[in-house]
Amino acid sequence: MKRCILFGGGPWEDFDQVAWRREPEDYLIACDAGYLAAQRMGVTPDLVVGDFDSIKGKIDPGPEVYTVPARKDDTDTMLGVKLGLERGYREFLLLGAFGGRLDHTMANLQTLSFLCLQGARGEIRSNHNWAWAVKDGSLRIPAMEGWHLSVFAMDTQCEGVTLEGLSYPLKDGEMTCRFPLGVSNEFEGPEAVITVKKGILLVVASRERPNY
Amino acid sequence: MKRCILFGGGPWEDFDQVAWRREPEDYLIACDAGYLAAQRMGVTPDLVVGDFDSIKGKIDPGPEVYTVPARKDDTDTMLGVKLGLERGYREFLLLGAFGGRLDHTMANLQTLSFLCLQGARGEIRSNHNWAWAVKDGSLRIPAMEGWHLSVFAMDTQCEGVTLEGLSYPLKDGEMTCRFPLGVSNEFEGPEAVITVKKGILLVVASRERPNY
Repeated sequence: MKRCILFGGGPWEDFDQVAWRREPEDYLIACDAGYLAAQRMGVTPDLVVGDFDSIKGKIDPGPEVYTVPARKDDTDTMLGVKLGLERGYREFLLLGAFGGRLDHTMANLQTLSFLCLQGARGEIRSNHNWAWAVKDGSLRIPAMEGWHLSVFAMDTQCEGVTLEGLSYPLKDGEMTCRFPLGVSNEFEGPEAVITVKKGILLVVASRERPNY
Repeated sequence: MKRCILFGGGPWEDFDQVAWRREPEDYLIACDAGYLAAQRMGVTPDLVVGDFDSIKGKIDPGPEVYTVPARKDDTDTMLGVKLGLERGYREFLLLGAFGGRLDHTMANLQTLSFLCLQGARGEIRSNHNWAWAVKDGSLRIPAMEGWHLSVFAMDTQCEGVTLEGLSYPLKDGEMTCRFPLGVSNEFEGPEAVITVKKGILLVVASRERPNY
């Protein structure tokens, strides 16, 4: 499936070591200040979206530019996600979505839920935290050495939650977003399988930073 | 109301500038490695809880020590919260709850919801992000200059959401945890009033770090 890759405005230092490769058919959207990160990575986005308050005059010729007013209801990242959906993409990779203000991080995590509701799937990658969401189905994650895997309900009630390939398994259980039951699990075996019969689960892989 | 102050294991650099003062009647709980932060702040906790894998032999005489097995269902912070509730506290301030692994941050945000369900209220403070939760009621937040204020549903459906004293107001609206409608609002006037008739809202105040 063709991917849409978004560059958000999170700090460069938070995702400069993320392993990813631009495939020829990838569609790259830079969300406002995320354009500067794309530049530092040496890639030219296909589309740049934002109000450009902070990066006015810094956009080189090449990408399509989609300008919105500064006063708007969506975040720059959500604008990028909506444009990607409008243009037919259903697989999203978000970079620069963590590591800055916590409100942006939280919004980007809820954006993964929004993507699920659109029949799309999203993945956020940073140097020390990756995240996915899964709705009424299963998600398989190959074991990541040295990383913890956590599962959070993104609904008041998630039903039929089964966690396999993890040190603390769960079978056909319930989870709620009002209690962090599934935090800090550990991979056990070659892959984790996260299943939910009803509702949306957020899955977060995290590892310690060297200095903590 | 007598407060319970918890020190979590988040990085010291993330909350070393938080303004708070120990009142004589405060009850201080250090959650495992959070003990080291309490030490750096020059305060002696009343209680230290954890498996102490990482800080074995480093606890000075004074606090009550509550040791739990390394393999347990609750995080160290949740253990501290539960002990605080058991001992009668209904007002909690959490320090060292942000800035480390994202899974811990997310768990601590859900812990604010858990506190609401127990009829208690919690507040997380770090240098650049503060958070609260409110259930079936109102929360008043004095304007914080230079900070953004965001509101997130912590339920599939929150009803009767009214946002006052903010640049993007809302009156008797609905919010869902599946879309970040209320991110990056701005204070307008002396205080913000966040009201929800049914459900739990997470409120996050964030400001930019100097280097972003």
